[in-house]
Amino acid sequence: MGDSPGNRRTPPARSGRPGIADVAAEAGVSPSTVSSALNGTRAVRPETRERVLRAAERLGYLPSKAPKAPKAPKAPKASTAPTAPKAPEASKAPEASKAPEASKAPEASKAPDAPRAAREESPRPTRVIGVITDGIATTPFAGRIVQGAQEVARERGALLMVLDSGGDPELEAHHLCSLPEHGVDGVLYTRTVHAEVERPRELGDLPVVLVGAAPADGWTVPAVVPDEYALASAAVAHLLEVGHRRFAFLTSDEDTPATRGRADGFASALAPAWYDGARSVVERAAPDAAGGRRVARRLLHLPVGERPTAIVCFNDQMAMGVYQGAEALGLEVPRDASVLGIGDLELLTESLDPPLSTVALPHREMGRWGMTALLALLEGRAADAAEPVQLAGELVERRSVARPRRLIPWLTGR
Amino acid sequence: MGDSPGNRRTPPARSGRPGIADVAAEAGVSPSTVSSALNGTRAVRPETRERVLRAAERLGYLPSKAPKAPKAPKAPKASTAPTAPKAPEASKAPEASKAPEASKAPEASKAPDAPRAAREESPRPTRVIGVITDGIATTPFAGRIVQGAQEVARERGALLMVLDSGGDPELEAHHLCSLPEHGVDGVLYTRTVHAEVERPRELGDLPVVLVGAAPADGWTVPAVVPDEYALASAAVAHLLEVGHRRFAFLTSDEDTPATRGRADGFASALAPAWYDGARSVVERAAPDAAGGRRVARRLLHLPVGERPTAIVCFNDQMAMGVYQGAEALGLEVPRDASVLGIGDLELLTESLDPPLSTVALPHREMGRWGMTALLALLEGRAADAAEPVQLAGELVERRSVARPRRLIPWLTGR
Repeated sequence: MGDSPGNRRTPPARSGRPGIADVAAEAGVSPSTVSSALNGTRAVRPETRERVLRAAERLGYLPSKAPKAPKAPKAPKASTAPTAPKAPEASKAPEASKAPEASKAPEASKAPDAPRAAREESPRPTRVIGVITDGIATTPFAGRIVQGAQEVARERGALLMVLDSGGDPELEAHHLCSLPEHGVDGVLYTRTVHAEVERPRELGDLPVVLVGAAPADGWTVPAVVPDEYALASAAVAHLLEVGHRRFAFLTSDEDTPATRGRADGFASALAPAWYDGARSVVERAAPDAAGGRRVARRLLHLPVGERPTAIVCFNDQMAMGVYQGAEALGLEVPRDASVLGIGDLELLTESLDPPLSTVALPHREMGRWGMTALLALLEGRAADAAEPVQLAGELVERRSVARPRRLIPWLTGR
Repeated sequence: MGDSPGNRRTPPARSGRPGIADVAAEAGVSPSTVSSALNGTRAVRPETRERVLRAAERLGYLPSKAPKAPKAPKAPKASTAPTAPKAPEASKAPEASKAPEASKAPEASKAPDAPRAAREESPRPTRVIGVITDGIATTPFAGRIVQGAQEVARERGALLMVLDSGGDPELEAHHLCSLPEHGVDGVLYTRTVHAEVERPRELGDLPVVLVGAAPADGWTVPAVVPDEYALASAAVAHLLEVGHRRFAFLTSDEDTPATRGRADGFASALAPAWYDGARSVVERAAPDAAGGRRVARRLLHLPVGERPTAIVCFNDQMAMGVYQGAEALGLEVPRDASVLGIGDLELLTESLDPPLSTVALPHREMGRWGMTALLALLEGRAADAAEPVQLAGELVERRSVARPRRLIPWLTGR
C-alpha cells in the first residue's frame, strides 16, 4: 500500500483476553483440537484433553458464546476450519484491550544512560526472543509473522530481536551465531516458504520453535505450518459453490510440502463433484507471474467449451500472470475465467483489475502460535513436537470469481 | 517474493567497516555533506566539517578509493546522488564481513532460565531500541527500515523491539505508552508514508529519531526522509536521456511533502529541456492502481502525436494502473508509452509484464541512518535536528522504458 495509507485493511488485533489459538499454542496442539476437547465435538485422547484444559485454565480462557461451525471441507490431519484462526479475536471486546499498559504515564520513562537499571526495575526478568526471518524486506509474509509474534510478546512482556537474512543462508548462520552474545533466551525460527528445513547447527542449545516450515527428518521441534490441504480445498469449495465444473490448478514446479499439500487438497475437494461432471487439469510452472502467464495463454487458448472456467493458482503472483495471459487473448476476468489465488499479498490482490479473490495464508496466526509455544517452552512446559500443527487460511472474496457463463451446447461443439 | 525465493534480489549488506552513510548519520548530516567535507568538492561550514571529521575518526572511516561522481540532477537542498547510499557498501570486502561474531561457538548459549544473568555477562549494558513501524504486514517498506536499523543495531550490539501499529493511531499510542515498562532506551519512530507528523505526546522523555517523515511545526528532532525532489528528477533525467520529450506526471491527490517534493523535482528537471521542445502535463489521482488506470485511459486516448510518450508515476501502484489503462486501449508498454514508477515494490515491479523500471525509495538506508543517529544520541552526541536529512533513491532499470517511436509528422497532424 505504501504511499496509499487508505488501503490498509487489516489493523492488528489488540491484546485482550486469550482466544482459542492462544490455548492451542499453550497446549501445543491445533485450534481444532482445542475446540474438540472443550466442546466434545470430536474424540480427543484423554491426555490431550487434560493438557488443553490445563492450558485453558492457566490462560483464563473463556469460550466465546457463539462458536462458528466449520464450513470448509475437512483436512485429513488436525486442521482448523478456514475461519477459525481469526474467529477468537473477533470476539474480543475492544474496550478491554488496553487496560494495563495504556494507563502508564509517560513520566515513567528512563534516562538514556541507564538501560540496565531500567530493565532491572521490571517485576520479572524480561525474556529476549530472537526472531529469525528470511525476507522482511521483500514480501509482507515475514512482517505478518513478526506482527503475530509481537502481539503475544507484548502481552507477555517479552522483547523481540528481529534478525532478517533476506534468504541468504550465510547471513542467517551469522545471525544465529550472534544470538547467545545478545543474551537471547529462545529463538523463533521462521520461514515464509513452506519447505522442509534441517536443524541449523548454529542454534546450539537454544530453545527453538519453528514457524512456517516443517522440520526435516530427525529434527524434533514444535512447529506450525499452513494447512496447505485446507487452503486449496477452501478455494475449490468456493468455486464449486459458485457453479464451476471445469477447473485448472496452476501450481509450482517445486517439490515442497506446500505444493504437495495444495495438490492433495485440490484433488480431494474436487473428487465428490466428479459424479456431477466436474473435470480438472493440473499444470506446473515457475511460481511467479511469468509462470502463470505462460500456462494461462495455453489453457485459455482452448475452445470455449473445453477451457477451464475456474483457475486456482498456487500463489497470487501466478494469479496475476493468469490475468496477463487472459488480457493477451482478449479475455476478461471473471467473465471468461474465474481466478483464485493463495496468499493474499494485498499489494497485488488489491491492485489487480478486478481485485483478486484469494485464500489468505495464516502468517500472523503462525507468529502468534509460535511465540506462545516458545514462551511456554521457556517456562518449562514442553510443547508437543511430534507433528507440526497446521493452521488454515481465510477466504478473502474480492471480484475475480463469478458464475460460469452458460453456453449454448451446439455453439461450443459439444 | 513469497513462494518464489529465487526472485529475492537484494540480500542485506553484511556488517563491516563503516561507510559514508554511517559517518553521515554519526555526524547528523547528509552523505553528500560528508563527501564534500572530506573531499573539498563543495564549500562546507567549518564547524560542520569539524563534526564530520570527528565522526569519521570515531568510526574509523576510510574513504573508498574510487568515489563515484554524482550523475543525477542536483537537488536544491542537501542531497545525495541517487547511487550514493549504496556506494560505500559495495566497496566492502565480503571476506571481512563476519569476523568477530561468526567465530563464537554455539556452546556459549545460555540456559533458558537465566535471561537476566545472560545479559549481565555482556561487556557493556545492551541498549534496547523501540522501533515503531506503521505497516510491517502490508508493504515491504517498513521491513526495509527495520532491516537497515537491524544491520546497525547488530554491529553495535543493540536490541530492537519492533512494535507495529498497522497504521492505527490508537495502537501506536498504546505501543508508545508501553515502551518505558519494557526498559527501552530510545525510539526509532518510523513512517512508510512521507507526511508531516506531530510529536506523539506518549513519547515522554525518551530520546527519539524520526525516520521516513518530517516533523511538523515545533517538533525539533533528528529526522531522515526520502529526497523526493531527487527521486522525481532522476526519473525525468532517465527518460530525457532515452529521448522522450512529451511527459506526463501522474501524482497523488494528497498534499504531503512527498507530493510537493516530487512535483518540484519533476518540473525542475524538465525545465532545461523546454528549449528542446519538451512538454508535460501533471495529473492528480488517488495514489493506487485504480487512480493510475483512470488517468491513463484518458491520457492515452489522445491522438498519437499529442499523447505523452513517457509517464512518471507517483508510486508503483499507479504505474500498474497505467499498464492496465494501456491494455484496455490496446496499447503496449513500452512501445506506445514508457512508464517509470517510484518505490520499487518488487512484488509489483517484477510481476508486471514487462517488469517495471522504477526509482527505489531509500527505506533501508533511512533505517541505517536513523539507528546510527539514535545510538549517537544515546551516547551523548547530539545530532543536528535543524532540518531533516534527505536521502536519494536509486534508479532500477527493468523493461518499461524504451526510446519513443519516431512519428512521420504529416501522419500525426503536426
